[in-house]
Amino acid sequence: MVTWNNLDTLASYKELLNVEKVDLVKAMTGENGAERVKKYSVPMAEGLAFNYGAKAVDDNILAVLAKMAEEAQLTGKFEALYNGDVINTGEKRRVLHHLTRGQLGEDVIADGVNKREFYTTQQKKVAELCEKVYAGEIVNEAGEKFTTVVQIGIGGSDLGPRALYIALENWAKKNNTLKMNAQFISNVDPDDAAAVLNNIDVAHSLFVLVSKSGTTLETLTNESFVKDALEKAGLDASKHMIAVTSETSPLAKNEGYLAAFFMDDFIGGRYSSSSAVGGVVLSLAFGPEVFAEILNGAAEQDKLAKNENIFENSAMLDALIGVYERNVLGYLDTAVLPYSQALSRFPAHLQQLDMESNGKSVNRFGEPVSYPTGPVIFGEPGTNGQHSFYQLLHQGTDIVPLQFIGFKNNQMETDVVIQGSTSQQKLCANVAAQIVAFACGKDDENLNKKFEGGRPSSIIIGEKLTPRSLGALLSHFENKVMFQGFVWNVNSFDQEGVQLGKVLAQKVLAHNTDGALKVYSDLLNI
Amino acid sequence: MVTWNNLDTLASYKELLNVEKVDLVKAMTGENGAERVKKYSVPMAEGLAFNYGAKAVDDNILAVLAKMAEEAQLTGKFEALYNGDVINTGEKRRVLHHLTRGQLGEDVIADGVNKREFYTTQQKKVAELCEKVYAGEIVNEAGEKFTTVVQIGIGGSDLGPRALYIALENWAKKNNTLKMNAQFISNVDPDDAAAVLNNIDVAHSLFVLVSKSGTTLETLTNESFVKDALEKAGLDASKHMIAVTSETSPLAKNEGYLAAFFMDDFIGGRYSSSSAVGGVVLSLAFGPEVFAEILNGAAEQDKLAKNENIFENSAMLDALIGVYERNVLGYLDTAVLPYSQALSRFPAHLQQLDMESNGKSVNRFGEPVSYPTGPVIFGEPGTNGQHSFYQLLHQGTDIVPLQFIGFKNNQMETDVVIQGSTSQQKLCANVAAQIVAFACGKDDENLNKKFEGGRPSSIIIGEKLTPRSLGALLSHFENKVMFQGFVWNVNSFDQEGVQLGKVLAQKVLAHNTDGALKVYSDLLNI
Repeated sequence: MVTWNNLDTLASYKELLNVEKVDLVKAMTGENGAERVKKYSVPMAEGLAFNYGAKAVDDNILAVLAKMAEEAQLTGKFEALYNGDVINTGEKRRVLHHLTRGQLGEDVIADGVNKREFYTTQQKKVAELCEKVYAGEIVNEAGEKFTTVVQIGIGGSDLGPRALYIALENWAKKNNTLKMNAQFISNVDPDDAAAVLNNIDVAHSLFVLVSKSGTTLETLTNESFVKDALEKAGLDASKHMIAVTSETSPLAKNEGYLAAFFMDDFIGGRYSSSSAVGGVVLSLAFGPEVFAEILNGAAEQDKLAKNENIFENSAMLDALIGVYERNVLGYLDTAVLPYSQALSRFPAHLQQLDMESNGKSVNRFGEPVSYPTGPVIFGEPGTNGQHSFYQLLHQGTDIVPLQFIGFKNNQMETDVVIQGSTSQQKLCANVAAQIVAFACGKDDENLNKKFEGGRPSSIIIGEKLTPRSLGALLSHFENKVMFQGFVWNVNSFDQEGVQLGKVLAQKVLAHNTDGALKVYSDLLNI
Repeated sequence: MVTWNNLDTLASYKELLNVEKVDLVKAMTGENGAERVKKYSVPMAEGLAFNYGAKAVDDNILAVLAKMAEEAQLTGKFEALYNGDVINTGEKRRVLHHLTRGQLGEDVIADGVNKREFYTTQQKKVAELCEKVYAGEIVNEAGEKFTTVVQIGIGGSDLGPRALYIALENWAKKNNTLKMNAQFISNVDPDDAAAVLNNIDVAHSLFVLVSKSGTTLETLTNESFVKDALEKAGLDASKHMIAVTSETSPLAKNEGYLAAFFMDDFIGGRYSSSSAVGGVVLSLAFGPEVFAEILNGAAEQDKLAKNENIFENSAMLDALIGVYERNVLGYLDTAVLPYSQALSRFPAHLQQLDMESNGKSVNRFGEPVSYPTGPVIFGEPGTNGQHSFYQLLHQGTDIVPLQFIGFKNNQMETDVVIQGSTSQQKLCANVAAQIVAFACGKDDENLNKKFEGGRPSSIIIGEKLTPRSLGALLSHFENKVMFQGFVWNVNSFDQEGVQLGKVLAQKVLAHNTDGALKVYSDLLNI
């Protein structure tokens, strides 16, 4: 049995507050720095490695973080989670997204159903759909094959699947496994759907409507928008629409859809990329084998998250260092900086994953906590960010911890040599240079050209961004966020903070407002 | 003559620290809240309005901010800037981006050249180019018209022009003024250029190479990448390439380009959207008349920034409230949240604009400052963000000030009624609801469902996102950042923080490294 305690009740936390801080400039300069970078590395699945040489930690701090992992029973809590305990206390739900990609512990039976089998069955059904679409067994009314798949969803039904699609689109083209182009409609702004519909051939498009409850207003609105367009084109919408929803939703067993695939209440939206939410669109786009590879990569990395040794468990160590930065060093933000254009929307997914999970002020028991919890996450791909907001990161008045990601090889295998190096070498040289520049800084008599340094970062390094390494990356961050939630003793799996806005928006639409809300409604001509 | 003083030397700053804080929940609840929202609004150009009803200010605080504007001589400094003083002290340069869109003060003559005329001449030359391209006078080697324009640039040569292109792409389609599709290549990651080249027809594409110095390594590398592709397609690259650079750069008067357009050292990259940097690609894509409308909107808003009355000068008031939030209330971040899918990349542009300008720790004289300066900027369009990171904004342990943007009408004029309201009404209802939810919160016995409120926001409301209103928005934020730089007494127009990384990256590429940098280089296989 695990026990759930607030961070500030832990002996290891009190110890952590008093351990001597690291002078990162000193630690990272000279041969001492070289030794740190060699030593401070955790192997991950799929050839990835989490290197924390440039984090403001040392053996003393790490020893206390190891105690914290034990005292907070992090692996025990993870075990309880994957074995099916009701970890989502707010909504009284299990948390089973790991089961979509593997069996980490005992069978989980809920309402008489083996959940691993349930998720696997959905994946098989998706694969069957794909084969029928590719083979021309499921076709449009003119008997022609579908060429485009359009995901209609918002939040977790959009950000994760979209980030993964963009991450592998060019890889798939290069490897001749791009079966269908994918597009995404999310925003209730009608210009979003209109723009996507303008850019596709609706007659050859399948639309995947994703809403667990079947009642997400933005998504239903966009569905109507799309159905209107299909009808105006003289097409039968039900021949173009697929639902991804829960078995109890109004979208299930509904003749308006040519197929329906299911997730359940145990898969939170932001953790749903490896369920049918990501599975349908990604399988149709890349082929079910490719989606299976993403799952395999995630499953391999999930297994490593069971390890009690923080030096062999990248997600747990990353989580603990983040807690140290947030609660001891007092940093609010974390920037995610992938040196890979394919990961251009991965920071947006992590932004939801992290901020929606741990942006909480009460613990699992609904009691206020008196310490900072989840950080603000933002980021853009390098090298682009270098020519943008890195100025503040280097010379601003606040320190922002950094999470770099880099790959030795690019996806497209097309490159050019300029001034003696390839683009890929330049890309990698830049991320190496940035880590050291942030950590070590540089003195200068002209203080405008001085870099204080002492700005901590980690980097995940991989061979190449592939379906498997992408799955491993996804797992790393999901589990990092989960472990941080455990340390902060918050429920990382509900999101009550989204409710009030929904309620007030309904009041506005019903013209049932007064006070400031009425004035804003009038100003916006509603 | 203006005098430059640190914020913490100002009497108004000391006064500001001691003014009673506003209880935003109380202030925004009931009819009192309604009165605030009606009253706390500044008209802007092009029918926009800056509403700060939900900011944590009141008449007392605003009175001190008005004193600060006067004591810090904000309009005097702006006047010095647009009249050509050397405001960029770090690089000893004038700051003249306002002249690209109007004459706010005296003629500015530099090196015998009237700079307003210089910029206007470039715009006329760009317009002439456009007419020739549209008319088929400038064609590819097969005598066919160009259909696509590809901007090759990074940082300010990418983010601003790209954000503006995305903002108007659908508007232009709707208004039959999309002359050419635009694409953008920025990252040195070779997969970026490869992906763009895969998606276009190079034989019918014009490439606009943008580098002020003509030496930006990422941009030259991508140029070579593109030239390779053109040559492999049997095309003469010089018939496809246009340069935007300074007159003294190696790209000027170079036979490798079919045309060259010029900016100069007085236009910083992040302030260059209204110069030829944005002008060439946006004029080619939308027509020079549309680009001129962006400039007109910006010029109208620039004029308002001259106003000494903070209640009639949205940029200055927004800047001062931001300083209050940063330096008195102690907030680090600001989220930019446009309720407009067309503005999906506008936050990324503002991120560079703001963080690269004011992410500084030394004042204009190179002396360290002892107060926080520029905030961290991040954001995504609503309603998407609501289903993502808003959880933390509502219920997280830290307060993040919010900058909303909304429009009464959408661009595409296509909409659908679901559950009694259009998508556009839902979009607007959501932003109204969010403002009030953030400000007022909601009590609940279940603390997990309680919203503390007290989270300040402003909103810029417009009729529709058009070239003119977009220009006004751009001006508002450029001038806001400028005024904040004046208050903090930093130089908002250099970026020494980008240099160290460049130097170290060159060392890595030359294999001239030791210590930690060598280890990272080895790990990344460079």
